[in-house]
Amino acid sequence: MTDESAPIGVFDSGMGGLTVLRALEAALPGESFIYLGDTARLPYGSKSPGTVARYALQASEILVERGIRALVVACNTASAFALDALAERHPELPVFGVVEPGASAAAEAPRGASVLVLATESTVAGGAYQKAILRLRPDLKIHARACPLLVALAEEGEHEGEFCERVLGHYLHGHTAGGSVSDPAVVVLGCTHFPVFREPLRRLLPDHTVVVDSAATTAERVADALVSSGATARHPGRLTLLATDGVRRFTRVGGYFLGRPLDAVELVDL
Amino acid sequence: MTDESAPIGVFDSGMGGLTVLRALEAALPGESFIYLGDTARLPYGSKSPGTVARYALQASEILVERGIRALVVACNTASAFALDALAERHPELPVFGVVEPGASAAAEAPRGASVLVLATESTVAGGAYQKAILRLRPDLKIHARACPLLVALAEEGEHEGEFCERVLGHYLHGHTAGGSVSDPAVVVLGCTHFPVFREPLRRLLPDHTVVVDSAATTAERVADALVSSGATARHPGRLTLLATDGVRRFTRVGGYFLGRPLDAVELVDL
Repeated sequence: MTDESAPIGVFDSGMGGLTVLRALEAALPGESFIYLGDTARLPYGSKSPGTVARYALQASEILVERGIRALVVACNTASAFALDALAERHPELPVFGVVEPGASAAAEAPRGASVLVLATESTVAGGAYQKAILRLRPDLKIHARACPLLVALAEEGEHEGEFCERVLGHYLHGHTAGGSVSDPAVVVLGCTHFPVFREPLRRLLPDHTVVVDSAATTAERVADALVSSGATARHPGRLTLLATDGVRRFTRVGGYFLGRPLDAVELVDL
Repeated sequence: MTDESAPIGVFDSGMGGLTVLRALEAALPGESFIYLGDTARLPYGSKSPGTVARYALQASEILVERGIRALVVACNTASAFALDALAERHPELPVFGVVEPGASAAAEAPRGASVLVLATESTVAGGAYQKAILRLRPDLKIHARACPLLVALAEEGEHEGEFCERVLGHYLHGHTAGGSVSDPAVVVLGCTHFPVFREPLRRLLPDHTVVVDSAATTAERVADALVSSGATARHPGRLTLLATDGVRRFTRVGGYFLGRPLDAVELVDL
């Protein structure tokens, strides 16, 4: 039986998943959350699929042991490589990833349109977004671009200004020329770090381009599922933050992604 | 007893240390090397000192078990946080780091000059270069700048051109204005990824600024020590490459740093 007062577990390789947590808090007010950032082993984006799946299973155990009523994998790499294994390991829990909701939103694009996925090297190479979107809409043209500098830039807290737009432009270059075959109808933010760039991206992209924020789309998906099962909390929400390393950096940098200063972060061993 | 036909062990958190290996091969022709990149757990630069030391000790065991006659820690973060622990664990081996040789070279600066250290966030925060340079030359003014985007840029293989110079300029901004108090006499490349940017940096910096490449200075230090102990090899050299994850990416990206295509990379578990 699911304890409806139990928190929702949110797991990420690091701090980027706090953008998903932020969206979840907005979509599910009053709900409690427990967030685990596997900062000792980040980034997952440059690691092999087998290693990512092994790490994700270990991390999920920590959350499950503390008692959760749903698991949100707020990490694109782990969503791509570990979601099936996680669902199999925890058949009693609803398990949500960030790829499928983002792909569903992208699938709203007009017939034959271009979709540009901005993600980490590993997410792009694994092709999870490309496959998930094409499964829903085989007529769309999918372009995927690995943007490793954007992760570093997000963690530096440089989320606007001329230099930020120059780096964003570097990755958009060749994808937004008006009328070109690759002029994207939709840009998918396929890395949880990237929602912090929504506003400068909005300025750099044509008005007709839709920016899909997979943090927001995932939060909507989770809220829909838990509300439709009648399982939303009505008590005041609590937030517990766990990290596997570098608690001080997590507290400082994590605030960029959660959008407010972080309270105490607890160190756990993996 | 040291077996002079044994290889020199080179350890890094990932692939950046291949710039040190490249410099070592040039300084010690005919020598054999065994390189271990702890790619499963990179980057060390954002991890805590205790975790970095633990990882470095584990990695050194792999190299020592295979028989090495010297250990080069080709990682600034591990040199800063783990060198004493490594020397204590392996009293039979000469152990070299990359911080001290770079600091010694920077200490050649004119009296009262400014020195700019470009490094990872963790190396800057740990203050290893700052302390090592000031110990030798308390009169110098040390500025240290964390450059996380440069690591990503180096691994993207984007080592020249307008965008590359724009990112380098972002980190040099405020440090190179002619006549300013911080106009650096010396720029220290305090991350093993950064030697790939030596040429564009040379173009961006005034002629009077000396660029210290800690890969090159470390290789000179190792060559001096092994030659002075009469222990240089005369047989043809061999190179063994080990990585803890992502062998395919290591082979592709590592070539940027070694300056030539990589042969087979062997996967080891840590």
